Amino acid sequence: MRRSIATVSLAGPLEEKLRAAAAVGFDGVELFEDDLVCCPRSPEEVAAIVRDLGLTIDLYQPFRDYEAVAPDLHERNLRRARRKLEVMGRLGASTMLVCSNVSPSAVEDDALAAEQLRVLAELAAGYGVRVAYEALAWGRHVADYLHAWRIVEGAGHPNLGVCIDSFHVLTQGVDAIGIESIPGDRIFFVQLADAPRLPMHVLHWSRHHRCFPGQGDLDVQRLLRHVTASGYAGPLSLEVFNDVFRQIDPLRTARDGMRSLLALEESRRPAAGARRPPPPPALNGFAFAEVATDPEASGGVARALAGLGFVPAARHRTKPVRLWQQGQARVLVNTNAAAGTNRVRLAALAVETGDPLASAERARAMLATERPRSAGPGEAVMTEIAAPDGTSIFFCRTAAGDATSWIGDFEPERTRSEEADAGLCRIDHVGLSHPFGTFEEAALFYRSVLGLQTVELPELAGLNGLRRAETLAGGEVRIALDTALVAGGPLPSVELQHVAFRTSDIFAFARAVRAAGTQLLPIPANYYDDLEARFELGSETIASLADLGILYDRDDRGGELFHLYTPIVGRGLFFEVVQRAGRYSGLGARNVPVRTAAQRER
Amino acid sequence: MRRSIATVSLAGPLEEKLRAAAAVGFDGVELFEDDLVCCPRSPEEVAAIVRDLGLTIDLYQPFRDYEAVAPDLHERNLRRARRKLEVMGRLGASTMLVCSNVSPSAVEDDALAAEQLRVLAELAAGYGVRVAYEALAWGRHVADYLHAWRIVEGAGHPNLGVCIDSFHVLTQGVDAIGIESIPGDRIFFVQLADAPRLPMHVLHWSRHHRCFPGQGDLDVQRLLRHVTASGYAGPLSLEVFNDVFRQIDPLRTARDGMRSLLALEESRRPAAGARRPPPPPALNGFAFAEVATDPEASGGVARALAGLGFVPAARHRTKPVRLWQQGQARVLVNTNAAAGTNRVRLAALAVETGDPLASAERARAMLATERPRSAGPGEAVMTEIAAPDGTSIFFCRTAAGDATSWIGDFEPERTRSEEADAGLCRIDHVGLSHPFGTFEEAALFYRSVLGLQTVELPELAGLNGLRRAETLAGGEVRIALDTALVAGGPLPSVELQHVAFRTSDIFAFARAVRAAGTQLLPIPANYYDDLEARFELGSETIASLADLGILYDRDDRGGELFHLYTPIVGRGLFFEVVQRAGRYSGLGARNVPVRTAAQRER
Repeated sequence: MRRSIATVSLAGPLEEKLRAAAAVGFDGVELFEDDLVCCPRSPEEVAAIVRDLGLTIDLYQPFRDYEAVAPDLHERNLRRARRKLEVMGRLGASTMLVCSNVSPSAVEDDALAAEQLRVLAELAAGYGVRVAYEALAWGRHVADYLHAWRIVEGAGHPNLGVCIDSFHVLTQGVDAIGIESIPGDRIFFVQLADAPRLPMHVLHWSRHHRCFPGQGDLDVQRLLRHVTASGYAGPLSLEVFNDVFRQIDPLRTARDGMRSLLALEESRRPAAGARRPPPPPALNGFAFAEVATDPEASGGVARALAGLGFVPAARHRTKPVRLWQQGQARVLVNTNAAAGTNRVRLAALAVETGDPLASAERARAMLATERPRSAGPGEAVMTEIAAPDGTSIFFCRTAAGDATSWIGDFEPERTRSEEADAGLCRIDHVGLSHPFGTFEEAALFYRSVLGLQTVELPELAGLNGLRRAETLAGGEVRIALDTALVAGGPLPSVELQHVAFRTSDIFAFARAVRAAGTQLLPIPANYYDDLEARFELGSETIASLADLGILYDRDDRGGELFHLYTPIVGRGLFFEVVQRAGRYSGLGARNVPVRTAAQRER
Repeated sequence: MRRSIATVSLAGPLEEKLRAAAAVGFDGVELFEDDLVCCPRSPEEVAAIVRDLGLTIDLYQPFRDYEAVAPDLHERNLRRARRKLEVMGRLGASTMLVCSNVSPSAVEDDALAAEQLRVLAELAAGYGVRVAYEALAWGRHVADYLHAWRIVEGAGHPNLGVCIDSFHVLTQGVDAIGIESIPGDRIFFVQLADAPRLPMHVLHWSRHHRCFPGQGDLDVQRLLRHVTASGYAGPLSLEVFNDVFRQIDPLRTARDGMRSLLALEESRRPAAGARRPPPPPALNGFAFAEVATDPEASGGVARALAGLGFVPAARHRTKPVRLWQQGQARVLVNTNAAAGTNRVRLAALAVETGDPLASAERARAMLATERPRSAGPGEAVMTEIAAPDGTSIFFCRTAAGDATSWIGDFEPERTRSEEADAGLCRIDHVGLSHPFGTFEEAALFYRSVLGLQTVELPELAGLNGLRRAETLAGGEVRIALDTALVAGGPLPSVELQHVAFRTSDIFAFARAVRAAGTQLLPIPANYYDDLEARFELGSETIASLADLGILYDRDDRGGELFHLYTPIVGRGLFFEVVQRAGRYSGLGARNVPVRTAAQRER
């Protein structure tokens, strides 16, 4: 099927939008009227640019408040339509979107609506244009797609069909299966958008909070199956009104949108002979996390790791990279970062995959950007892709002993000292704070590229404002994303990354590292007073938690989380240690305010 | 009455919040539980800080999900309450807020609720604590303040009263007059918050979008009259959950909140002997707008003004400031800005007031920051205050010939050349784009300090995202504020300021300046195609508008706006010329996308 995107989904002037759509492989665009109105190019010039980019204009939109009105107003509306049809002729656009009337001047009269739409379709036919009639969820009298279809059917003109918009259908509480009752050739256009379930009026919701399919809570997949079953063979087009997309790089948004369509199409039966990306191979945890630091800050990172019981296990044969290890938890410390920044950041994540080559092939098919790597002679050949926030993702098989086994690039440093071991066994999760505007893209990226699933979507109350979060998981790989709920305040938001390690006995761990002189993040006594009021843990347990600075949470099913933190290392990073009991799957969102306050105090 | 603010209304760690509240003159605070939980100080230390700052803790909040539950859960809730009462004793807080139960474990049984609240009140009495019971708008069984009062009345314990929260009362569709039926001494606490009318669920609305009284759409004034009539004599406290306030400078938010209370109190009958700020004197338009520019960019400003028919009329006797004039429109160009910035900005606005001294006194009373000025011998003595975005506001009487008449500081430059006059008669409005997070504060500032009224609140669709806007007006002073709806995207938002001049014949104006070689902002032909489709203006009018680059809008009552723009001058400023016909009071929000696109093209 053809893939389109509405220009209103992208930021910037029209030409930049068109270039972005073409660059990521869209076949066509919906041209939003305001984008043309604000464009200094004539319609003919726009048509030429569209053609030169290999695109088509699949829809001109929207034409509003047309049907079911008194005769004199209808005359004026027809005059208005004629002007738009002339412009469409100059653009070479052959389908016009007519939204159901929202004006108080519209009357509730389906026969009148049908008759006036028939007149419009007849007028449009003279210009070689088809009219797609769409039920807006807030249409004055027509808000349901089957109602729109009945009117179209009643009009009985070959140039009149319906437009199906997933947002309007899926937010109206009507079953999308009715789409199958519409002949596919009378569906003239299909617009796809998703949205998070938000408790607000549908118009406000639609205008500000749409997102690409897979980024929200609507069942766009199911709707698409009904659309396919109807026999519809026209474009699938992304029409997304989103306050954030309106102000970020249109190329980035276009790529995000195309990735969303590619992932959505996986849910459909493939056309005969169509090539598909391989499914995401099973993951088996993190091979390592790589911390980049400048030489000045590297001492702090080494002390923090040693303080948690890690030992330096090996050195890279050719690069300034050291492997710190404890159990199956591995951290690479790369001191290659620009000197003088005193910045420590999580530069890369490596996931253990059953098939590194298939993982890489899938990533490429899902439009991940690959980073060029030069492997020295005999060194591991790994694919490195860039996540939306710039973090590198490696695909590897540590134990394989083949070219994807990175560990062979390292020279063991010395016999491993088991004494230092404090009982950490693996990486439990990594936390990536995202710059504003990349959050939805990142979540979709990890779901579609790595095959992770969303586990929870908590709201975090940080010291300097609320944050949105999403935890994604699959095969012992857990990635926690978060971003400011509202950005742009004068106080800088703190973008912290973290690596959390798993232990089976956090009390023993905390005692061991304290005995070795490690300073963990101090937690206020008031927190434990409140904990005692909230949970009936017993005063001994509370005293132990308080003594060791361990935080606690319990879920509805009795699953428990015990966790503790290090202070911030080099401005950008901290470490966490977690112990899970029962089936607690979250990350302790309730305790985030305490952590952020304590980290600020330091 | 005592003035309080909830710590949850302010950003940052608890101590910073307390300092901010004290600095702007609050008498007390509501202590939000999470603020204490996250604080490394013991309750006794917090109590000492509060005392040293001259504050009191007027409320400890919130205690949740207590009443109307099964006996075993009630026992556990009482245990929880006891822990909190102990903490309150250590804090020296004597009123506890109990919110109506939202948990599914609550049953609909007013008698049970009353009995359990009575038990809590009796327990609290032992700690010298009073319990204020509040109906949350989303309470499971108790959502209405009169329902809460009936339960409190039923409990019949002297240590149990109600808490009135303006948000919960005013969003529930019940009449606030019922507050007068509650004896004032049984109202233990009053929380004030406003909110814009937003089409969303009340919980989401309350948690994210509250604002200070006067900044939203709720009739907090009327509620306060009912509270006063009840005989309530406790604190008025600002409890505002606002996503933006949570991440901006708490001192700024505290001052904004105090200004809101001061303005709100003006609506009440003053206590005997209470001193009040003088009412805002009548304004009579702008005396001048002052543009600051570095020497490099000053040539561009001079060319832009000359291009609009302004002539240099006078020079300041001691400062590098030149007065440009046309009719009663006056622009000061101050070339004192730091060199090399190539930055042009609107540095000051001067308003004509009937009583400059009273205007200044009112500004001070409304917590405006005064800027020190040194007047040379014989120079005008004017008060200069700083608006929230840093723009200076001067109060003056140009024609008075006294010390407030700034014009005497200027030396007429030469006989005014009337030939250059292009028919501009006065400043119509000024437009100030605000950095994110200062918008509500600025709107309240102009309303309370200058006495302006809100005229319109349009949403603007700029090229790089949506913007919120508010136009304020009074006595021919019009100020248009706008800010990004969502900030923080990777594309920088364009913060432009502008000065708009009024003419009675924009066609003659445009022809005259074009004949003189002035380049106005070019408007796309597509705009006029669309204009012709939307309005039946006649092809001659459309042709004239298109020929001269004049934009057009019409309101529902037939009022018309004709306007045109200059290109951007020195990166931060542009000029506009407007002609109004009929009673068009807006600023042409519909045309903003066209302007922003055209300014980007240049």
